[in-house]
Amino acid sequence: MEITQLIIDAYGCQGPLNDAEPILDAMTRAAERVGAHSIGQAQARYVPHGITAILFLAESHILVSTWPEHQLAMVDLLLCNPDMDPYAAWAELEALLKPVSEARINETLRRVALEPGTS
Amino acid sequence: MEITQLIIDAYGCQGPLNDAEPILDAMTRAAERVGAHSIGQAQARYVPHGITAILFLAESHILVSTWPEHQLAMVDLLLCNPDMDPYAAWAELEALLKPVSEARINETLRRVALEPGTS
Repeated sequence: MEITQLIIDAYGCQGPLNDAEPILDAMTRAAERVGAHSIGQAQARYVPHGITAILFLAESHILVSTWPEHQLAMVDLLLCNPDMDPYAAWAELEALLKPVSEARINETLRRVALEPGTS
Repeated sequence: MEITQLIIDAYGCQGPLNDAEPILDAMTRAAERVGAHSIGQAQARYVPHGITAILFLAESHILVSTWPEHQLAMVDLLLCNPDMDPYAAWAELEALLKPVSEARINETLRRVALEPGTS
């Protein structure tokens, strides 16, 4: 099984970057939108500002780290069900974070199998 | 500031994949090896097996997800201090996970700045 991890750097964010709660709420909506199931969450707070929040999913995870001083949010989306669209999950986060410019999105292919394989 | 995120799929792991404790211990050693500072940790357990563990660092995070049924560990290493070598951190994890074949390592460049930039 091959799955696509989205690694997103969202610049110029106008949304809340220093409070984990609305971000975790958006991560939960993102999971619900694609039919993924939350199995837990955690967060860490940086000094003087910024947070990292993770939503553990039965289908892997969503992670957001913020850099308020740069209006930057770094997002990782990994959904191990290939029928779930990580771009649909990102749309929920994007609606909260409101990057002014297009976010830089990197797709990384990951292969859930016994061997690396070639495809 | 540009930093390199390592995204690693380690196949044929002979190390413990179903117990978060030794994995979190190795993540802690990985952080110490590069001089990073832990600010928290969290884990989730999958049914029937497998775990995801995250070590929150002052310098970003280390995340490991395991798929015991595939002898597979997926590792994310993000260190926001460009002087810290993520490959040195990976070496600590690799020593525990013991993938039989070479792990598939993907480097993703992330840019901590106000704008995406070009370099």
